[in-house]
Amino acid sequence: MIMQDTTAYIEDVLKKYLPKKEGYQKIIFEAMEYALMAGGKRLRPLFMYEVYVMFGGTDKKVIEPFMAAMEMIHTYSLIHDDLPAMDDDEYRRGRKTTHIVYGEAMGILAGDALLNYAYETALSAFDNTCDTKNVIKALSVLAKKAGVFGMVGGQVVDVEMNAQVPEPVVLDFIYRLKTAALLEASFMIGGILAGATEEETEALEMIARNVGIAFQIQDDILDVTSSTEVLGKPVNSDEKNDKTTYVSFFGIDKAKTDVKKYSEKAEDILSGLNVKGDRTTIKKLIESLIYREK
Amino acid sequence: MIMQDTTAYIEDVLKKYLPKKEGYQKIIFEAMEYALMAGGKRLRPLFMYEVYVMFGGTDKKVIEPFMAAMEMIHTYSLIHDDLPAMDDDEYRRGRKTTHIVYGEAMGILAGDALLNYAYETALSAFDNTCDTKNVIKALSVLAKKAGVFGMVGGQVVDVEMNAQVPEPVVLDFIYRLKTAALLEASFMIGGILAGATEEETEALEMIARNVGIAFQIQDDILDVTSSTEVLGKPVNSDEKNDKTTYVSFFGIDKAKTDVKKYSEKAEDILSGLNVKGDRTTIKKLIESLIYREK
Repeated sequence: MIMQDTTAYIEDVLKKYLPKKEGYQKIIFEAMEYALMAGGKRLRPLFMYEVYVMFGGTDKKVIEPFMAAMEMIHTYSLIHDDLPAMDDDEYRRGRKTTHIVYGEAMGILAGDALLNYAYETALSAFDNTCDTKNVIKALSVLAKKAGVFGMVGGQVVDVEMNAQVPEPVVLDFIYRLKTAALLEASFMIGGILAGATEEETEALEMIARNVGIAFQIQDDILDVTSSTEVLGKPVNSDEKNDKTTYVSFFGIDKAKTDVKKYSEKAEDILSGLNVKGDRTTIKKLIESLIYREK
Repeated sequence: MIMQDTTAYIEDVLKKYLPKKEGYQKIIFEAMEYALMAGGKRLRPLFMYEVYVMFGGTDKKVIEPFMAAMEMIHTYSLIHDDLPAMDDDEYRRGRKTTHIVYGEAMGILAGDALLNYAYETALSAFDNTCDTKNVIKALSVLAKKAGVFGMVGGQVVDVEMNAQVPEPVVLDFIYRLKTAALLEASFMIGGILAGATEEETEALEMIARNVGIAFQIQDDILDVTSSTEVLGKPVNSDEKNDKTTYVSFFGIDKAKTDVKKYSEKAEDILSGLNVKGDRTTIKKLIESLIYREK
């Protein structure tokens, strides 16, 4: 599949795994769909799927629940991040944020609902395979990378650092956990479910970590160099929020150099992998992240 | 074990499964502990454990991760329920609520952290047993009863009904999902992990549903008949919040009769079960709920 086709396929997978909009609690199904189907790059399920294919995985019924679960976890984190007590954002991807449309209480609950539903969805993979061992491994990776030793841990330190200037080692911690952790899980789960070895899974984790950090630095760069029209969200938001970023700390030149450095590191590890499938799709995906404009 | 001993044992289990308070994200571990170790009746893990024992379960390493996970899910729901956008409560169990102590952003994140960590914790049961099939079943029950078809679904309708008078059928839906669902999961998981049959698991679900609804009606009764000192939280909060409860809808007399009715129904199903162990502990626990004063 070429990349646009894969993104369309992912949108179909997401829709398929959303609950039907019916019953007394219908409003929460609508809010979940509103948040989940808001577009976006679908980077995490995209990488998960392509890594799965690269390692020779063929059974979509096993990988799909995890693709959907991953995007649900990413989406819940965005909903909660946008809340007034957090980043207080009214727009995301050019649309009103979930709590603006459905109210703050329902925004909190829609986030909770998507996080929990991610596990319901991922657990459904057990129904579709006898390969219980790898599904258990994949679930453990998902839970660890989404939680206090992964994404949530990064958010916590990010919130704590608000308006303070963090040490570079803390900035690295935030980027690694807040942004890279879910990408790490996506790469690792794609590999695990296709039967990757421990060693290969560790290599995948390292590729994703470098991609994640590069991605976040590029995000910081775009926040100062792009426009609201192109990004679909306000630019200069970091400066307005007194937020220290890679760019404000190291300057734009080093930021640009390091995006390249981290991406090349990721591609180096990728080249060293001994895989069944073609690695050019992953390579192209990584490169599209470096040269992206939004 | 007598009941106080079991509660002390559960406190130990909870402490054991909490993450160490170290690292850059230390504050979130503190907030999780603050919320989780705030006392309370520990009803859900208590029932889970006692049902497990009643069905002949002996391996604590299998049930403990689920006991801890269940209380983490219950606790996350309380943290988010207390937020300003939800019930806006400053006190719970006589102590300041989590967002009052740690700030609103950290309150949101502490809830997210506990929900996700519940799954990390429950998944660790796979490391302690070869009985993969029942752990998978237990995980599915946990996820379903905690989510949009369980507790979160109930919270959603509860929030939507705020200051409206719901139909009795909707009030029943809220009580069944918001309060009973996690009790249902606790009973079911206790049974499943001890090897209960499908039929027995269904009976356990029904016992818990009746106990849950009785428990919630008793809660409504205490809100109008108790004192802040005894309850550890403000009384008459439902009236102040214009909230329709079983008491405001049906009156205190029918409420009291129905607590008894639901409890007796639960005990009837319990008597019909063919179990290895002694059922008097569960029976006593149910009765202690009816006659409780806080």
